[in-house]
Amino acid sequence: MTRQDGRAFDELRPIKITPDFVKFAEGSCLIQCGNTMVLCCASVEDRVPPHVPEGTGWVTAEYSMLPRANRERSKRDIAKLKLSPRSAEIQRLVGRSLRAAVDLAKLGEHTITIDCDVLQGDGGTRTASVTGGFVALALACRKLVEEGVLASNPIRHFVTGVSAGIVGETLMLDLQYSEDSRAQVDLNCVMNELGEIIELQGTGEGRAFTPQEQQELVRLCAKGNRELLKLQREILKR
Amino acid sequence: MTRQDGRAFDELRPIKITPDFVKFAEGSCLIQCGNTMVLCCASVEDRVPPHVPEGTGWVTAEYSMLPRANRERSKRDIAKLKLSPRSAEIQRLVGRSLRAAVDLAKLGEHTITIDCDVLQGDGGTRTASVTGGFVALALACRKLVEEGVLASNPIRHFVTGVSAGIVGETLMLDLQYSEDSRAQVDLNCVMNELGEIIELQGTGEGRAFTPQEQQELVRLCAKGNRELLKLQREILKR
Amino acid sequence: MTRQDGRAFDELRPIKITPDFVKFAEGSCLIQCGNTMVLCCASVEDRVPPHVPEGTGWVTAEYSMLPRANRERSKRDIAKLKLSPRSAEIQRLVGRSLRAAVDLAKLGEHTITIDCDVLQGDGGTRTASVTGGFVALALACRKLVEEGVLASNPIRHFVTGVSAGIVGETLMLDLQYSEDSRAQVDLNCVMNELGEIIELQGTGEGRAFTPQEQQELVRLCAKGNRELLKLQREILKR
Amino acid sequence: MTRQDGRAFDELRPIKITPDFVKFAEGSCLIQCGNTMVLCCASVEDRVPPHVPEGTGWVTAEYSMLPRANRERSKRDIAKLKLSPRSAEIQRLVGRSLRAAVDLAKLGEHTITIDCDVLQGDGGTRTASVTGGFVALALACRKLVEEGVLASNPIRHFVTGVSAGIVGETLMLDLQYSEDSRAQVDLNCVMNELGEIIELQGTGEGRAFTPQEQQELVRLCAKGNRELLKLQREILKR
Amino acid sequence: MTRQDGRAFDELRPIKITPDFVKFAEGSCLIQCGNTMVLCCASVEDRVPPHVPEGTGWVTAEYSMLPRANRERSKRDIAKLKLSPRSAEIQRLVGRSLRAAVDLAKLGEHTITIDCDVLQGDGGTRTASVTGGFVALALACRKLVEEGVLASNPIRHFVTGVSAGIVGETLMLDLQYSEDSRAQVDLNCVMNELGEIIELQGTGEGRAFTPQEQQELVRLCAKGNRELLKLQREILKR
Amino acid sequence: MTRQDGRAFDELRPIKITPDFVKFAEGSCLIQCGNTMVLCCASVEDRVPPHVPEGTGWVTAEYSMLPRANRERSKRDIAKLKLSPRSAEIQRLVGRSLRAAVDLAKLGEHTITIDCDVLQGDGGTRTASVTGGFVALALACRKLVEEGVLASNPIRHFVTGVSAGIVGETLMLDLQYSEDSRAQVDLNCVMNELGEIIELQGTGEGRAFTPQEQQELVRLCAKGNRELLKLQREILKR
Repeated sequence: MTRQDGRAFDELRPIKITPDFVKFAEGSCLIQCGNTMVLCCASVEDRVPPHVPEGTGWVTAEYSMLPRANRERSKRDIAKLKLSPRSAEIQRLVGRSLRAAVDLAKLGEHTITIDCDVLQGDGGTRTASVTGGFVALALACRKLVEEGVLASNPIRHFVTGVSAGIVGETLMLDLQYSEDSRAQVDLNCVMNELGEIIELQGTGEGRAFTPQEQQELVRLCAKGNRELLKLQREILKR
Repeated sequence: MTRQDGRAFDELRPIKITPDFVKFAEGSCLIQCGNTMVLCCASVEDRVPPHVPEGTGWVTAEYSMLPRANRERSKRDIAKLKLSPRSAEIQRLVGRSLRAAVDLAKLGEHTITIDCDVLQGDGGTRTASVTGGFVALALACRKLVEEGVLASNPIRHFVTGVSAGIVGETLMLDLQYSEDSRAQVDLNCVMNELGEIIELQGTGEGRAFTPQEQQELVRLCAKGNRELLKLQREILKR
Repeated sequence: MTRQDGRAFDELRPIKITPDFVKFAEGSCLIQCGNTMVLCCASVEDRVPPHVPEGTGWVTAEYSMLPRANRERSKRDIAKLKLSPRSAEIQRLVGRSLRAAVDLAKLGEHTITIDCDVLQGDGGTRTASVTGGFVALALACRKLVEEGVLASNPIRHFVTGVSAGIVGETLMLDLQYSEDSRAQVDLNCVMNELGEIIELQGTGEGRAFTPQEQQELVRLCAKGNRELLKLQREILKR
Repeated sequence: MTRQDGRAFDELRPIKITPDFVKFAEGSCLIQCGNTMVLCCASVEDRVPPHVPEGTGWVTAEYSMLPRANRERSKRDIAKLKLSPRSAEIQRLVGRSLRAAVDLAKLGEHTITIDCDVLQGDGGTRTASVTGGFVALALACRKLVEEGVLASNPIRHFVTGVSAGIVGETLMLDLQYSEDSRAQVDLNCVMNELGEIIELQGTGEGRAFTPQEQQELVRLCAKGNRELLKLQREILKR
Repeated sequence: MTRQDGRAFDELRPIKITPDFVKFAEGSCLIQCGNTMVLCCASVEDRVPPHVPEGTGWVTAEYSMLPRANRERSKRDIAKLKLSPRSAEIQRLVGRSLRAAVDLAKLGEHTITIDCDVLQGDGGTRTASVTGGFVALALACRKLVEEGVLASNPIRHFVTGVSAGIVGETLMLDLQYSEDSRAQVDLNCVMNELGEIIELQGTGEGRAFTPQEQQELVRLCAKGNRELLKLQREILKR
Repeated sequence: MTRQDGRAFDELRPIKITPDFVKFAEGSCLIQCGNTMVLCCASVEDRVPPHVPEGTGWVTAEYSMLPRANRERSKRDIAKLKLSPRSAEIQRLVGRSLRAAVDLAKLGEHTITIDCDVLQGDGGTRTASVTGGFVALALACRKLVEEGVLASNPIRHFVTGVSAGIVGETLMLDLQYSEDSRAQVDLNCVMNELGEIIELQGTGEGRAFTPQEQQELVRLCAKGNRELLKLQREILKR
């Protein structure tokens, strides 16, 4: 069994990150992972939600699919008057992942909202949102320092995300939609630059999986995350 | 008084239309008018809403701004649980304009929905949605013919839209946001390839305007629409 | 071709405006244009929305149809949990039209909301809402002056609205529903007492129309608006 | 203690019922009880909700206040995205009351919806909705017979409603708002033409009340209902 | 005719009240009336809604059915995006009933919310909510006194609720679902410890009823309420 | 460092499962894990959602907290008109976990909905919902077999869930709220009776964690899940 697009089992799809894709947001990028395209925009506001302790900041995320991001058109959330439960689940994951990247005390009383809007979805949109969302977040933080709003950069560490899964009985990195839709097991892993785990979500959709299989999937993800980290570093060096 | 970006008073902003910006929609393009960027996607479905006479088709549009399309982030519709009234107004205009372009009998029992999502808004998003939306619509219709779903192309005529306004006491074509926000009068005009009017909306935000001024604004729009039509023809020739 | 109700092509339906139809609102009237009946109520509040500059006031409108205003019963907005997009479009038009009638600086930090509730709809409800809404607004402003809340009347000019259209190939003033529903072209025009345009909306529902046709429709509307203005003056003289 | 408007304690406010106030509904009237004004419209549809047994019909009601029906403007339900709980309570009462008036088997598979829209509210709007709603319902049923849709009139008996209360320590019939707002006890009573009770709702807002007081309030209501019944008969005789 | 469960016509179902069923609420109980089970929780907050006069408190109630409380599963309110109109009606009744039990001036600027969640519904849930809700309310008030938040207990009198009805032509106390669903007449009666009425709601679902029948139903309810009062006293003595 | 309630680090809280806590649902139980109490009800319907392949069944879950389940009262979802995003996330997890327990082909065209309503929340409500939800599901499946609706039991394997975390620097099983709220790392693990993983969610709220730590947390969960499995077997043996 080989992969449809000829990739090795531990190979990422071609990744492209275009920083500053839009210009009004404090930070933005368009991230493309194969056919998956997510526009990530970081917006800074000078106030924090009520539950945040005085003097500290907040980082949150919103995630949405454009109606024709997928093979079939889906209705907008507003037409159904409810946030898609899948989007709710994903934006909580993205928010926790990116919040972990920031020293909220250093951020001071600012909220940074990362909007992740999927222009095209071909698998892996939630982890692309984490990886691209981090770039938008880092660009916004840099701007806050350059403009003298913050004394020092509140980024604590880089954050990347990638998925792995078991298709047939083969373990594979970075599932595209045609693989994801028939995967037995699907696991998303968000890591920092030390290879430590920030978020881990594994689902036995087709069958249960052993702790050993789970470890191997994490190891595959670690490889992918190292490559994504390298790309983020290049983009942000400029 | 000269324009901020050095344009002549009857000059359009630089326009760029990228067809097939996303690949799952039956037709799509990214239209850029200066800093304004709208992603237009046409989706075809094999059924029509109940109010449509048997045997004929339907064309409709949806319009939305991404939360950080503008200088300040705005909440998503779903967070407020209501479609922005401005979006409601605009998508009705876009829908009527594009519906007028199609012979609904020839379209047969299909619905084409044009999603216009503003990635960046710098004035003129509703008319850019009409102009770009027509390209997406035409690409989708061509595909329906190529795939043998339709016997002949149901497009009756091209459709373009542009705005003009009175800023200070000067009449100008294609207002960008910095002009639009202080315009006395604002007029949007959608036309077909014969220079006939399909939709006309004029508002005296700062002062009332005379029928003579109104005619001159329509004449300015006619000039802009001719140039947009030329660009559409080039794009669709390929 | 003659009109169903025997009117001349440039003749308004019989108009009746009953001021103070209800007594709690600061200003109110029932406007009847043929079978169309709209209850217009002006309510004054001592605060303004956040976007309004300090020291100035605001005028806004809401528009709604009672469920059995039409030939068929329609569900209430609340049953569908969404403001009818048509109502959203119309109340923005009515709000802009009536706001243009008022010197917002003279109004001071007050909001006047004009509620236009259609008791019976037989075509022309949006322009009847403008014409009747102006009467309610003017009565409310007069009351604010009489009660010493305002030093001088903030009304800048009268505002009236009427529609014209092309039915068959005939241009007609003030379309009733049976005409409107088969009109090729429909144009609404809101004017001040000088015959200047405040709002203009033209739609080629059945076919596109030339700029010349558009001018003639505006001229028809100007005639109708002059007659509506005369009636407003009589009502408000009392 | 005398009543503000000089009425006797067992005296109704002046009542006026204008049948056919609007013309598209199958039945309609405007009912005025003092300053309270409710527009009641009956709409007939050729289908019934799923819970209704085959071959039988349904009668239901909707109740709403226009935003400026009262001394202060209130937001529309749709602006708050929820049906006012008070309206929900009232329309269930009106629906049960009017349903009881109809032989649902004779009505056949039709639904009659009675829309009660309060144009002005000065106390007693729910019972005015019952009394006026019955007139609209009876007019619609008559029309169904006249048009041959129904073989015989499905009205089983007349239905009227009125309130009584204890203000200070005085029992009074038909409270207007100024009385209602300071009543100790408030009781609404819907009766048929035999003086039998269809709906009864009593509330000790200011203090609890004895069963003896409750009986006297019902007796007061019975007097008022007899007078309302007489007026309904006159209106419907025409 | 005898009752399905062998009860006498004026006999309550077995009642059990478990105080402090949950431990975080300031007061709580589980009330069981036959198969009907309602969890009642009283929550105290240090602020009052805007409409409450300065220095006084507020008591309110919310009522809801769990989706599988009944013989058939029903959708959650949030899935339909609307509060069930029946719940709206009931929670207004429960709120008025319990508010009447409290001296709001003595309560000071606190709001007590009584949540009544029906775990199982077999008839009489609204009156069980009143009876159980009072126990939760009284426990919360006692706690406020014990903790020194209030100087004296604001409870003015006990409150209980029970239903009676006419099934066939027999008057019965405390209808269970199998009786309620075929009752001709249904009456709910909330009383204080003196046997005075606080809330009364009677509905002639199957037929109208005479004032004499109504009195007898109130007398039946008075008997039931006396027994419920006795149980409340025992529970609260501890 | 010892645990507040004196438990060993790898020790579960006292667990109690009361089957058939309510009687109308096809299967139900009340599960108590320390102070956490969740009512789980399984409802069977004879139809499946549109996305389910013909001839197969569906299992889904809903999760909600009663307003006073926690130390502070929270508003109901319906008052905010949105499903809590946390509930959305959790019910998707519970649904996937329980769906994995069932052979959907054997279930045939039935939907089983597991409602998990938290009566009291003291940490671990999502995993208690899985463990208790499985009992409700298994009871419902048994009933379907006993009643002859299904030929054989569609349960494929048992499912249990438990959490573990790192508090301070100590790994602990089954966090209660006081531990959970200050945990550095939190991991939920759903397993089958073979100790294979069905769902895994780990979050580094306070700090990132190594793959080694992650493995140890899974091992702790495996121990807890074995004990929960034993309890489920006893309950279901009866």
